[in-house]
Amino acid sequence: MTRTVYLNGEYLPETEARVSIFDRGFVMGDGVYEVTSVLDGRILEFTGHMNRLTRSLNEMGMENPLDESEWLAIHRRLIELNDIDEGLIYLQVTRGNAGDRDFAYPPADTPQTVVLFTQSKPGLADNPAAKSGLRVISLPDLRWGRRDIKTVQLLYPSMAKMEAKARGVDEAWFTEDDLVTEGTSNNAYIVKGGKIITRQLSNDILHGITRASLLRYAAEAQMQIEERPFSIAEAQAADEAFVTSASAFVLPVVEIDGATLNGGRPGPVAARLRELYIEESLKRAV
Amino acid sequence: MTRTVYLNGEYLPETEARVSIFDRGFVMGDGVYEVTSVLDGRILEFTGHMNRLTRSLNEMGMENPLDESEWLAIHRRLIELNDIDEGLIYLQVTRGNAGDRDFAYPPADTPQTVVLFTQSKPGLADNPAAKSGLRVISLPDLRWGRRDIKTVQLLYPSMAKMEAKARGVDEAWFTEDDLVTEGTSNNAYIVKGGKIITRQLSNDILHGITRASLLRYAAEAQMQIEERPFSIAEAQAADEAFVTSASAFVLPVVEIDGATLNGGRPGPVAARLRELYIEESLKRAV
Repeated sequence: MTRTVYLNGEYLPETEARVSIFDRGFVMGDGVYEVTSVLDGRILEFTGHMNRLTRSLNEMGMENPLDESEWLAIHRRLIELNDIDEGLIYLQVTRGNAGDRDFAYPPADTPQTVVLFTQSKPGLADNPAAKSGLRVISLPDLRWGRRDIKTVQLLYPSMAKMEAKARGVDEAWFTEDDLVTEGTSNNAYIVKGGKIITRQLSNDILHGITRASLLRYAAEAQMQIEERPFSIAEAQAADEAFVTSASAFVLPVVEIDGATLNGGRPGPVAARLRELYIEESLKRAV
Repeated sequence: MTRTVYLNGEYLPETEARVSIFDRGFVMGDGVYEVTSVLDGRILEFTGHMNRLTRSLNEMGMENPLDESEWLAIHRRLIELNDIDEGLIYLQVTRGNAGDRDFAYPPADTPQTVVLFTQSKPGLADNPAAKSGLRVISLPDLRWGRRDIKTVQLLYPSMAKMEAKARGVDEAWFTEDDLVTEGTSNNAYIVKGGKIITRQLSNDILHGITRASLLRYAAEAQMQIEERPFSIAEAQAADEAFVTSASAFVLPVVEIDGATLNGGRPGPVAARLRELYIEESLKRAV
């Protein structure tokens, strides 16, 4: 089935959705994105993603071209047009078509490019990796210094995913000064003595929407949380490890650089958090 | 006049040149580029730029889709179609239209996207900045760790150029661990006691084609060269400073973070090098 996608006010067949070669997103990596999950035809964590979008745009000197209700209307229309029950909705905003290439930003009244499309993922909530767990390797974090801005400059995470694949594992965790920053497209956690440990927010990591919600749900469930960096060695000696992202929710990690955690099986804390997260975020889905 | 541009084998009006929203260049920053200068209708440093293109592609696990003679034919056709006497030719290669968005690379047989366009710049060799000199500020180098690969992930250099502009100067030099890496889109040099000092090649800086040629021409002219990093403080105390790039050739720097060099006037070494560079590269133009 040909998807219907959204591009600058129009709903188009995916094969007809094209942008100028002068689009700042194409020639400069000058764009930001968000991905939300859909379960039971409803969007998870919508307001959180919309707030982060505005923040990313503002950090780059851009306005949000639409308000939350307009964004929601587009999301819902795409869910309907593409009959999405479980899946993802991707949105991207760039500084628009400058008509030519220049490092300098185009005039402020240049219309931004707005793109949204769906990805149908039946079984999204029933990911087999939740039962098998992920095997990860560590790689140096060579990304730029503003990882808190969710830009489309994703080459290095892409390279790292391919490197993980080439080395026969599922995912990579980035390290900087011997400490884990995060995964290629997820936040990283360890569990020790019942305590959930994850790196504190800064410009060094993405401010995960799933991360924020999960920590809130976990705190409400009286679980202990410590926000600080940890090393690969500490992670290898942990009771459990896991990652969170908008599309994966919570996924257990069972191996880090060849060292097995919890006997190579997903641990109880990650399993409990996954259940808790899906339950709580579904309650708030729109 | 509407430019004619090249896109995947076709010569098109610039307004009709569009790429899929699923192009890896648009959604992932997964592309590389080159810019060559045209003087007297001929291309400078062509082989150097073609060799670097191949290197950038290979570092990202991509093949060069065309051979040097095919690239040259497209460049020449665009010069002719757009009547370019002095100007620039931009080329970009991305991993192509994957048909959907995924961090994993698309199948290896996915056709790459190839885009070229011209920018007419009458007076390119007669840049007034060669007489007035550039004023620069320093900014922290927040780019990714593989600056030797010439990718389209140019948001931070763009932000830095805008910051320089907002602060009333012409350009920014990036620093890391208190040492200058390079400019936003050029290599950085100082001159002390007649010696030309510039940072050695590594993954920290772009391997400038203009840099390589200029150092060769300077060595042939018996000038002394030292390849090592320098600090902003050392640069402020230098006799002269300058930058090189494919589009600017050699441009003097007369102020660094508010400190004036050579009484605020372009120095003799930069002027001599600019002349030498244009003369020598024109001899080899194709």
